[in-house]
Formats: sequence, C-alpha cells, structure tokens
Amino acid sequence: MQALLRAVISFRDERDWAQYHNPKDLAISLTLEAAELLEIFQWKSPEQVQAMKSDEQACRRVKEELGDVLIYALNLANEFTFDPAEVVLEKLAINGRKYPVEKAKGRADKYSAYEE
Amino acid sequence: MQALLRAVISFRDERDWAQYHNPKDLAISLTLEAAELLEIFQWKSPEQVQAMKSDEQACRRVKEELGDVLIYALNLANEFTFDPAEVVLEKLAINGRKYPVEKAKGRADKYSAYEE
Amino acid sequence: MQALLRAVISFRDERDWAQYHNPKDLAISLTLEAAELLEIFQWKSPEQVQAMKSDEQACRRVKEELGDVLIYALNLANEFTFDPAEVVLEKLAINGRKYPVEKAKGRADKYSAYEE
Amino acid sequence: MQALLRAVISFRDERDWAQYHNPKDLAISLTLEAAELLEIFQWKSPEQVQAMKSDEQACRRVKEELGDVLIYALNLANEFTFDPAEVVLEKLAINGRKYPVEKAKGRADKYSAYEE
Repeated sequence: MQALLRAVISFRDERDWAQYHNPKDLAISLTLEAAELLEIFQWKSPEQVQAMKSDEQACRRVKEELGDVLIYALNLANEFTFDPAEVVLEKLAINGRKYPVEKAKGRADKYSAYEE
Repeated sequence: MQALLRAVISFRDERDWAQYHNPKDLAISLTLEAAELLEIFQWKSPEQVQAMKSDEQACRRVKEELGDVLIYALNLANEFTFDPAEVVLEKLAINGRKYPVEKAKGRADKYSAYEE
Repeated sequence: MQALLRAVISFRDERDWAQYHNPKDLAISLTLEAAELLEIFQWKSPEQVQAMKSDEQACRRVKEELGDVLIYALNLANEFTFDPAEVVLEKLAINGRKYPVEKAKGRADKYSAYEE
Repeated sequence: MQALLRAVISFRDERDWAQYHNPKDLAISLTLEAAELLEIFQWKSPEQVQAMKSDEQACRRVKEELGDVLIYALNLANEFTFDPAEVVLEKLAINGRKYPVEKAKGRADKYSAYEE
C-alpha cells in the first residue's frame, strides 16, 4: 500500500499538481469517479451484471474506473497523512464490533437493514 | 494490498455475506459511501476545509468514510478477480500517457480542463 | 413551477440562508440527496423494488428524499435564473433529436447503450 | 408541474421505454446525472464558480444537466404516483418544522451543521 501511495503522489508531483489538490475537491472527484464506475451497470439486470464478469470490454471499463476511484482515495488519504492500510483495518474492526460474527452469520434478514 | 484484500474477504465470508454481493450493488454502495465522505465537506469554505486537517473529529470522520470507500472498492476488485495494486498501477500508466510530464508540468491552465 | 420556485426561495430567504448558497455547494448538496434517495434501494432485488411501491414506509422515505432533490434542483435553477419548466422542456427537445421516435420505438437493443 | 410530468411521460411512452424504468434504476440514473452536473464545478474556486454565471457555455452545460436531473426526478415521482408539486411542498413543510424561522434566521452557525 505504501508503495502504491508513493506512486500516486509521485505522479501528482511530477506534474506539479498538488496545488490543485485539497480535501473537498478530492472528495468531489472521488464521488464523480464512483458515479462513472456505477454507470457501467446502469439499466443492467442481475443476469446481465453477472455476464459482464466474462466480458472483456466490460472488465476493462470496470478496471479503469476502479483505478480512478482508488487513485483519488489514495490522494485523499495522503491529504490527511493516513496510512491506507490502517484506514481499511480500523474500519473493518469498527464494522466487526457493529456486526459480530455470531450475530451476523446465517441471518438472511441481516441485509434488509444492512449498512456498513 | 493482497493482505488487505484477504482481510476484507474474510470479514465478508465469516458472516456469509457473499450472497448479497454483486458488482452492481457493490458499485451502488461505493457511490453511497463516497457521498457520505463528501458530505463531511458540504458547505465548507476552502479555509474551513484546510482547518479540518487539524481537527480530530473531522479527521476521524474522514478516516471512517474513506475506510468504507476502500472496503467496497476492494470487494468490487475481488468480484472481477482484479489485483488492486495492478488496478492502480495500470490506471497511473494510462493517465501518464494521457498527461505526459513534459506537457503537464507547470501548465496552470492544465487544470481548467483536467480530467483524470 | 414558478409558484414552487417562489416557495423554495421564500423558505431560503425567511431564514437568511442565501449567503450559504452558491452553485458548487448546491450541486454537491443535490448529489448528496440523490445518494440518500438511491440508498433506499441499496441491496434490493428487482422484486423487492416493485414491492416497495405498495409499502407505506418506503413510499414516505422516497417522497421525502425526492423532495430534497427537487428543492436543491430548484435552488440551483434559481442561481442561474433558469425557468425550471424551460429547463425540462429544452432538454426533452434535445433528447428528442438524439432519440427520434421512429428510431427509438420498439428497439429493445436501444437500452443496452442508452444514455439520456 | 402536471404538464411537465405529462411531457416527460409522453416522451418515454412514444419510445416504448417504460419497460426499462423501475425505481432503483431511475434512482441510479438520477445520481449519475447529479454527478455530471457536479462535474461542471470540479476543481473550480469560489471565484471561478461565480464567474460561471455569466459564461454562456457554462450556463448551457448546467441547464442541460439540470434538465436530465429534473427529467429523472419526474420519472421517479411518476413510478410512485406522486404529485411533484406536493412532493416539494410537503418537504418544505417538514423542513420548516425542523428549522423554524425564529430559530434559523441570522444564526451564522446554523450552517455549520446544516442538513436539510
């Protein structure tokens, strides 16, 4: 993760783009890329969505948009000097306390009100 | 990255939640979390946004929402059996060809039409 | 539409809130409310979605979030002194030229690449 | 509003597109259009945002994306047989009780935690 963060920040600094990066605009950009990723699945039925996993063009589009999402997420983590790995692990821990295994497993109704 | 991905997938499987995860709903969830992250900066001026970097409560909120975004991004990468590190590095390469350093560096007007 | 716009602007001015409204933050708010509306359908299958039309609580939630979306849309139209009715009719005209009836009707494949 | 709703539904029915419209996909589409609207303001400073109000090209882009947002909002209202005007007026009433004039007016700090 640290190596990826360095690659993302190098890319930004090689082009002298840090001047444009601030948390609010990075959060906006992250939202816009998430929407571009969601757009790939717009109007698709559950069957069509599963079929996309073996469609080369669909996979390529998803990979590219997911890349944009991750790049902005890493840039945002950097703004607050967060360790991306720590960000994930800490939230998994919080989620683990909110949804302990013994309560969550096997309860189909869990997902009717699920909210990570 | 691989270790983080395994942690995220284990969390899902311990609770038997893979049955609810499909690309479209994961992309929706990623968009919703990105919006919750953006909400932290709603109405804030550029000055207020910079001040948040040294505000403990704001930092904690950003860290948690960023965690949710990254967790869904990793779950989505897993759906398509992507290596998250590869997803980032490949998109940086694509962006590098689109915005070569010699063209991008120092050009303040670059950001008026900037689109990663 | 004009009456609705006046009601929305009066609400804002009674509270002296125009000082906080600017196009960018209104566009952010509109995106956040759209996400809250989408959240109502998170994880829901096509069958569950149709069932929501006759579920009183679901209908109430949708109505409220849709209200927030429309209120911000009207505030944004006001920022640019647009007539909301004209905004809709002009875009329908643009869409009509892009998707003429003779070409669009009956073509099931239209929606595989549909983009309004 | 009723006339606008009829225009939007006629457009859909002339092309036989009702078959593709369901609440969840309409909510997704509304979110995607809100993001396209927000994108117009990506990276823009408060000063640049105000300047856009007198920029013909920017105004045209905002008008078109706002049109898409309103069209999907009207389609979604129709799915639940809501009267769009009622949707707005009821939410203004709810907001009015949440933020009574006597409490809200003049309080600059109101917007630090403002949430419609």
